[in-house]
Amino acid sequence: MASTDKTAVDPETEPQSDAAPPDAEAAVAATATAKFSFDCSVVDVALRILVFAATLSSVVVMVTSDQTEVVPVPGSPQVSLPLQAKFNQSPALIYFVAALSVTGFYSIITTLASLAVLLKPFYSKSFLLVFAFLDVVFVGIVASATGAAGGVFYIGLKGNNHAGWTKICNVYDKFCRYNASSLALALFAAILLVLLSMMSTFTLYKKIRD
Amino acid sequence: MASTDKTAVDPETEPQSDAAPPDAEAAVAATATAKFSFDCSVVDVALRILVFAATLSSVVVMVTSDQTEVVPVPGSPQVSLPLQAKFNQSPALIYFVAALSVTGFYSIITTLASLAVLLKPFYSKSFLLVFAFLDVVFVGIVASATGAAGGVFYIGLKGNNHAGWTKICNVYDKFCRYNASSLALALFAAILLVLLSMMSTFTLYKKIRD
Repeated sequence: MASTDKTAVDPETEPQSDAAPPDAEAAVAATATAKFSFDCSVVDVALRILVFAATLSSVVVMVTSDQTEVVPVPGSPQVSLPLQAKFNQSPALIYFVAALSVTGFYSIITTLASLAVLLKPFYSKSFLLVFAFLDVVFVGIVASATGAAGGVFYIGLKGNNHAGWTKICNVYDKFCRYNASSLALALFAAILLVLLSMMSTFTLYKKIRD
Repeated sequence: MASTDKTAVDPETEPQSDAAPPDAEAAVAATATAKFSFDCSVVDVALRILVFAATLSSVVVMVTSDQTEVVPVPGSPQVSLPLQAKFNQSPALIYFVAALSVTGFYSIITTLASLAVLLKPFYSKSFLLVFAFLDVVFVGIVASATGAAGGVFYIGLKGNNHAGWTKICNVYDKFCRYNASSLALALFAAILLVLLSMMSTFTLYKKIRD
């Protein structure tokens, strides 16, 4: 009877003495998981707001970069005329503005969706999957737009002797400064989108391991 | 005794009659999971080999695109000289060749890693995570390189009246045809990398749901 009493008491007292009970362990693990998920969602929302800010600034700076300068007409250097440099004179810069506008719109939608997940984490896995898919597509869009505008900007900055393309940034200095700022913001947005995509994938990975 | 015999016999005969035993169910599920994982890995290896083929072709076509033409010297139309158009005369095209070479090298390494996962699927989760991370980075690299080269190519094809940049594709026709093919291959590689990244993420997602 003594041994029976011992075995009957031990399971009751043991969990409270040195080892945590399974219920408490599960609760701690659940809290840790919820905290991690919460933190990730908060960072996700913050990064998406940053992407929106970066793309909006980039588009505004690019659109307001037009500059009018009085330059000599090619062929007759005696005659000077006011000529304007504007983003819509280059197809690459038009593509840049279009791509970053779409990305800005996308970042608004995903910020709202991310906030919804933060408040109701039930659909978080499906949302993470959709975010990871779409973020990769938008990484491609923003990177290609930045590349196209950067390639054209570099010709404007340095020219190309082999093709006979003269630089224009010695004349249109404000236009080029604005373009450079816009490109830097777009590059920042592209890097943020890469980070967001990695974060979605990593959160999915964490959910597997937990 | 009759009822005892019945209960003793039933658990033995029932699984073989109408319902599958838990062991068999588990085996079927494991086979299905293994088959899915196997299929995904095979597609993954195939796509990575395609990425390698596309990037290698793109680099080879771009590097061999040089063309020499006898053109009138600007300023004195009576004098004609043989002038060469080559990819290394444009920083954007140099970046394009460098980025696609690095991507080709990356695709060799990941093809080998993907083959290793196919043969020993033990580390598949960690590999999928690393693949999903790196694929996004290379989507950005290939997309930006394609954008930069595409922007410069378009100026060569159409020129830009506003900036005074004349088109060169009416003279260097072979150079432009090769560049266009190279750009198409790079775009194909970028789309494949987007698909690969999505596939890695989706496989992670499937592993959560199973």
